[in-house]
Amino acid sequence: MPGVPVIGVPRSRCCPGVRSSHAMNESLHPLLAGRWSPTSFDPMHQLAQDEVDLLLQAARWAPSAGNSQPWSFIVARRGSLEHTRVIRHLAGSSAVWAPTASLLIANLAHRFVEDTDWEFSEFSLYDLGQAVAHMSIQAQALGLHVRQFRAFDRDGIAKEFAVPDHWEVTTLSAIGRAARGPEIDRGPDASARERHAIEQILWPVS
Amino acid sequence: MPGVPVIGVPRSRCCPGVRSSHAMNESLHPLLAGRWSPTSFDPMHQLAQDEVDLLLQAARWAPSAGNSQPWSFIVARRGSLEHTRVIRHLAGSSAVWAPTASLLIANLAHRFVEDTDWEFSEFSLYDLGQAVAHMSIQAQALGLHVRQFRAFDRDGIAKEFAVPDHWEVTTLSAIGRAARGPEIDRGPDASARERHAIEQILWPVS
Repeated sequence: MPGVPVIGVPRSRCCPGVRSSHAMNESLHPLLAGRWSPTSFDPMHQLAQDEVDLLLQAARWAPSAGNSQPWSFIVARRGSLEHTRVIRHLAGSSAVWAPTASLLIANLAHRFVEDTDWEFSEFSLYDLGQAVAHMSIQAQALGLHVRQFRAFDRDGIAKEFAVPDHWEVTTLSAIGRAARGPEIDRGPDASARERHAIEQILWPVS
Repeated sequence: MPGVPVIGVPRSRCCPGVRSSHAMNESLHPLLAGRWSPTSFDPMHQLAQDEVDLLLQAARWAPSAGNSQPWSFIVARRGSLEHTRVIRHLAGSSAVWAPTASLLIANLAHRFVEDTDWEFSEFSLYDLGQAVAHMSIQAQALGLHVRQFRAFDRDGIAKEFAVPDHWEVTTLSAIGRAARGPEIDRGPDASARERHAIEQILWPVS
């Protein structure tokens, strides 16, 4: 996002041996280099159940702290009862585009609760992020696109699906086929694929 | 981890249309299906600087909430001064294996601090997890292996590298070439590649 500074990372005295931040993009694995997050999905595209299963398997095999696997998923294919129950909790900003995705998945993290002995809750959000990343990369391998978003009523979804307090409905993923190519989808400012330079994400080591 | 129950996910009334949890593994993308976390690395293997750059690019292009990119990395190749500075803060349990990896990376999350207006900190751990996952998958594409771990002195690393309070040294990644195959590395119980069944990570929807 242009204009968001990376506070706390001095940009000088940085980065011995690190080359231009743009030179390597074409060498990234295609599943990583080609990934982007559309805001419009093909409303006619249907996901096969095999594809849904495979997305869940990708998440399932992600790494986690102590193999704690602190994640759970509410799966809502477009046209299903679950989909109807999810989309009624979307914010206005996501309700205009997310329902046309072939699939919505609510990503839940197993959070710490006082007076329990759950060991790995410190990493539950971190690990959920990894699981969703793995799911997104599997989606990319299937020719699909994913947009993760937070514009929904977290408590509303939790109540709708009887999610107890020690689970957090963290994000939603919209998954399907992009309706438009990235240049058109992103609009004139193309901000969705801007990134800080490598020099800004490397900690000074001197 | 065997014996860690997934509390709060009733296992009955679950999973319409979801097939056997094991049937799909062979259809996962090879970069996801073949990934595992070794505990022994080839102490002679050297990472090329191009490979280090590519790992950082993979993290850099990961998605994040509002494109906030709440991550930073301390990069320590084996043999460098930074490596010496990192390994002195390893716990006893990781000091026996992690220093032989070709590369150690400290993964930092940009955390919320009171009296600031940082907007996206709610997702900083989640997004850091995604960035490290992308880095791990790029490593896999390069024929490398990654083990993330927490067995180190977080405050020690923070002090060593002058990391201020609004950044959290969250995990370390050991990256290199596995010294042994997964069957031997994992030991007799092979628990590192066990996972809950799909039915246990799907929220009941009925």
